[in-house]
Amino acid sequence: YAPVRVNGFVCKNPMEVNADDFFKAAALDKPRVTNKVGSNVTLINVMQIAGLNTLGISIARIDYAPLGQNPPHTHPRATEILTVLEGTLYVGFVTSNQPAPNRNKFLSKVLNKGDVFVFPVGLIHFQFNPNPHKPAVAIAALSSQNPGAITIANAVFGSDPQISDDVLAKAFQVEKNTIDWLQAQFWENNHN
Amino acid sequence: YAPVRVNGFVCKNPMEVNADDFFKAAALDKPRVTNKVGSNVTLINVMQIAGLNTLGISIARIDYAPLGQNPPHTHPRATEILTVLEGTLYVGFVTSNQPAPNRNKFLSKVLNKGDVFVFPVGLIHFQFNPNPHKPAVAIAALSSQNPGAITIANAVFGSDPQISDDVLAKAFQVEKNTIDWLQAQFWENNHN
Amino acid sequence: YAPVRVNGFVCKNPMEVNADDFFKAAALDKPRVTNKVGSNVTLINVMQIAGLNTLGISIARIDYAPLGQNPPHTHPRATEILTVLEGTLYVGFVTSNQPAPNRNKFLSKVLNKGDVFVFPVGLIHFQFNPNPHKPAVAIAALSSQNPGAITIANAVFGSDPQISDDVLAKAFQVEKNTIDWLQAQFWENNHN
Amino acid sequence: YAPVRVNGFVCKNPMEVNADDFFKAAALDKPRVTNKVGSNVTLINVMQIAGLNTLGISIARIDYAPLGQNPPHTHPRATEILTVLEGTLYVGFVTSNQPAPNRNKFLSKVLNKGDVFVFPVGLIHFQFNPNPHKPAVAIAALSSQNPGAITIANAVFGSDPQISDDVLAKAFQVEKNTIDWLQAQFWENNHN
Amino acid sequence: YAPVRVNGFVCKNPMEVNADDFFKAAALDKPRVTNKVGSNVTLINVMQIAGLNTLGISIARIDYAPLGQNPPHTHPRATEILTVLEGTLYVGFVTSNQPAPNRNKFLSKVLNKGDVFVFPVGLIHFQFNPNPHKPAVAIAALSSQNPGAITIANAVFGSDPQISDDVLAKAFQVEKNTIDWLQAQFWENNHN
Amino acid sequence: YAPVRVNGFVCKNPMEVNADDFFKAAALDKPRVTNKVGSNVTLINVMQIAGLNTLGISIARIDYAPLGQNPPHTHPRATEILTVLEGTLYVGFVTSNQPAPNRNKFLSKVLNKGDVFVFPVGLIHFQFNPNPHKPAVAIAALSSQNPGAITIANAVFGSDPQISDDVLAKAFQVEKNTIDWLQAQFWENNHN
Repeated sequence: YAPVRVNGFVCKNPMEVNADDFFKAAALDKPRVTNKVGSNVTLINVMQIAGLNTLGISIARIDYAPLGQNPPHTHPRATEILTVLEGTLYVGFVTSNQPAPNRNKFLSKVLNKGDVFVFPVGLIHFQFNPNPHKPAVAIAALSSQNPGAITIANAVFGSDPQISDDVLAKAFQVEKNTIDWLQAQFWENNHN
Repeated sequence: YAPVRVNGFVCKNPMEVNADDFFKAAALDKPRVTNKVGSNVTLINVMQIAGLNTLGISIARIDYAPLGQNPPHTHPRATEILTVLEGTLYVGFVTSNQPAPNRNKFLSKVLNKGDVFVFPVGLIHFQFNPNPHKPAVAIAALSSQNPGAITIANAVFGSDPQISDDVLAKAFQVEKNTIDWLQAQFWENNHN
Repeated sequence: YAPVRVNGFVCKNPMEVNADDFFKAAALDKPRVTNKVGSNVTLINVMQIAGLNTLGISIARIDYAPLGQNPPHTHPRATEILTVLEGTLYVGFVTSNQPAPNRNKFLSKVLNKGDVFVFPVGLIHFQFNPNPHKPAVAIAALSSQNPGAITIANAVFGSDPQISDDVLAKAFQVEKNTIDWLQAQFWENNHN
Repeated sequence: YAPVRVNGFVCKNPMEVNADDFFKAAALDKPRVTNKVGSNVTLINVMQIAGLNTLGISIARIDYAPLGQNPPHTHPRATEILTVLEGTLYVGFVTSNQPAPNRNKFLSKVLNKGDVFVFPVGLIHFQFNPNPHKPAVAIAALSSQNPGAITIANAVFGSDPQISDDVLAKAFQVEKNTIDWLQAQFWENNHN
Repeated sequence: YAPVRVNGFVCKNPMEVNADDFFKAAALDKPRVTNKVGSNVTLINVMQIAGLNTLGISIARIDYAPLGQNPPHTHPRATEILTVLEGTLYVGFVTSNQPAPNRNKFLSKVLNKGDVFVFPVGLIHFQFNPNPHKPAVAIAALSSQNPGAITIANAVFGSDPQISDDVLAKAFQVEKNTIDWLQAQFWENNHN
Repeated sequence: YAPVRVNGFVCKNPMEVNADDFFKAAALDKPRVTNKVGSNVTLINVMQIAGLNTLGISIARIDYAPLGQNPPHTHPRATEILTVLEGTLYVGFVTSNQPAPNRNKFLSKVLNKGDVFVFPVGLIHFQFNPNPHKPAVAIAALSSQNPGAITIANAVFGSDPQISDDVLAKAFQVEKNTIDWLQAQFWENNHN
């Protein structure tokens, strides 16, 4: 019969399940070329390992160029926990809207090798490599087999089709031509 | 003993529970003054109705001035379903990062009175009143007793303290002085 | 391959998803003819908006004739939050069995325009329009994409086939002919 | 510090947890006196065994007098699975409102010793002992540490305070004096 | 179209659902032959009753020979609640690793007819019939429609293929030939 | 008032939350001394980072001596995803009881640097460093802020108090003196 999908992924006949359904070779060992903002996220989720379906976890390696960043983004379905393998990272997240004096607090840390930091589900967060000479590497885990990622600048200024510049000009308190200029840029995805 | 909180809210002695724990008077009937982006969200969540705790739902009235908007934002813990009571709204959301040609798709609609639209959990969405003369009003429901709201511009450019302009300039591909100018604006919260 | 259903609804190819999957036109604007108990519930759930699947929310408009009611019923899979758009409603729910003096407490309120009330998951509740001259209208949201509804009188006395009158006579402490008379009535569903 | 409650029950210091927190002696072995509808439900839930908190299960013994019944009721937070230990039971549940020809279907079975039957969460169900001479006994398990029980007749006609007879007369299509007569009865709880 | 499975089980057309989908005849009444460790677990889960799918509960009868046991095992997806129908059981579970002096505490009880005991999700537990002359019988319920069972000795020493004896010899602090001897035994499953 | 705990951990006043509540310094960078089975698990969970409470994830570094192992164990509340940072690991898990020919299948892989493997919730699994000369290091993430760990040998043979050797001798098909010898060993915990 037709392959059956739960949460969009194939459910395999238990008789045919084997170790390869829970395995991905050479997934996170190699540094990867970073994009124009200077990072590259290699996520191993249910699309790479079918056996993860319904199990609620995934893992990623993140490479950072000198002065590179994983720009402000959210994961709509997951909390992230990250540890630094190499180099230094300046990381932070912003809390959701709150009554003053508490609103949109920015919580940040400088992380060194072996430090651990948590980015709660759905909050805007970033990592930045402040070192002008050395790259950085991190391992991050996410609390979903399909966490999703929304890079703020890409989603707001690089969507297809574009969001009306009337709306964005007012939302960001800038001239429409500033929005038009932003929308004319190439917004590269660093989550593949 | 000390009041006990689950999910941060007091658990009441069942003997003392009464109808007022499930009730909020005159909550959503009155038009409210809109803020500088031209909207005002009146959310009735577990902070207004203690009985909502653990029940996974809340409701809001949203007022829109002519040409006003509820600017791009996310709810980190809830899906939203909205219906228009008065006027017209241009609404949309952007999907999360996807491999091309599917990435960051912008899905939008013009809504008239009685239309219903859904904004999936964690995705960036907005509503805009395109009418230059008439206000609009909507009722929205959210799938959490404490959905949270993150107004993108406020969280990115209006956080306390501010995010480094080095990070934001590279993330948004603009000059640092553009970021500095943005961070100097007053970012008003329309979710109270 | 065959369309695949999760929770009984089709999972669409992400490439083909569009705004119409999250939209229902002219759903809740028009007053509808009320049934013999004087109400009509127009529910927009996953059957009307496929994109709601797994998102855990739905919305309804409820019309009430003068002296009409949405009779005692439960939602087996959802909490309901309701606000009055027009008129006045007398609403209430009954708590589950408890040791005396707490058992089956009836919590009620008279709601005016803009008031909000919560009916916790699975509890028997109703709304009644006490005004003999004016209709009433409410918007309600439910914490499931498929909340279900069980109208107590219909399920007990109008099931197909009928429940044994021996059982019901003893359960309701009435003569069997009273049960037979009740079972002979037409039990109209106001949840469509 | 003050005893802390999660879901309303004390969280014990792990150092002090012992086997008695997971144990209830002589809970389900003895036949119990049945009430006026001829049954008695002995439920062992989180109030009897504190260690059940958050674990999502409970168990009950149900005694049935000859021609006795566990009258139509729902569990707002649990599915029930039942097996007969002694005697015979006629059992059934009614599905929620559906478009015709499917609405409020009554599904029933006669159960003998060792048979198993399932009552899905939130649906109205009952058990009846059709034998005029012999009692019956069942063991039932519920998918919550605090499933709740709503005996329909008690909640509708025996609530404190009473539901308006105007509302109930119309809902049940009977004269107000029939409702008044019903509300004047003593509605005994068989779930203790 | 192809039968569709959620959690691996067919979702039936609601029009065709009937009482047999929630029923299993003569499932738990008969004593069954016990295996070489002196027990036999008769589990009624979603494979026997399709209507249990997604409902989160199952039920079992366990037969114990004199001096028989249901050997140390875990349920990866369920908490178990058990009551004794006949005879006496010595039962217990071991808590997970904890800092001393709390680590791997063994909590046990002797259960007589009608006693109830809880085995929390995922913890190693067993039941033993200490009576050299009389069998014992218990009814157990589990908080999943598909709880799974892992008999420790079978999974560790009777897997297919076998786990390396190098690994097991070190893990269990015994000689490899002891492991080899253990792996040469026949490990009979008492959960069918 | 008294500190309030949810899932056993303090809920902090949102006004006082800061980055340190989501941070652990120098947690995972340093190799640690391995125990007598040749491993050491350094788990960063909600006890080290209070901000993880309710967020459903934790992370660990695992050090392996040459020929060292993280012996057969389960996590009662989490799935684990692991990647190798240094060296080589032979890993595997055993499926739960199944009807033949499927029962207790052992799925294994040899992992090299950068490989990723998944251990589904509640299943018995281990990692072994087959290299007689070089240590190995892995990073693992778990789908709970408090996953728990049950080392099989420790829980079965090293519990406090000990499980009856009558029970264990029959369960493991060995002489009681073999059990007594095993129970006399020192069972060291490698999960701290």
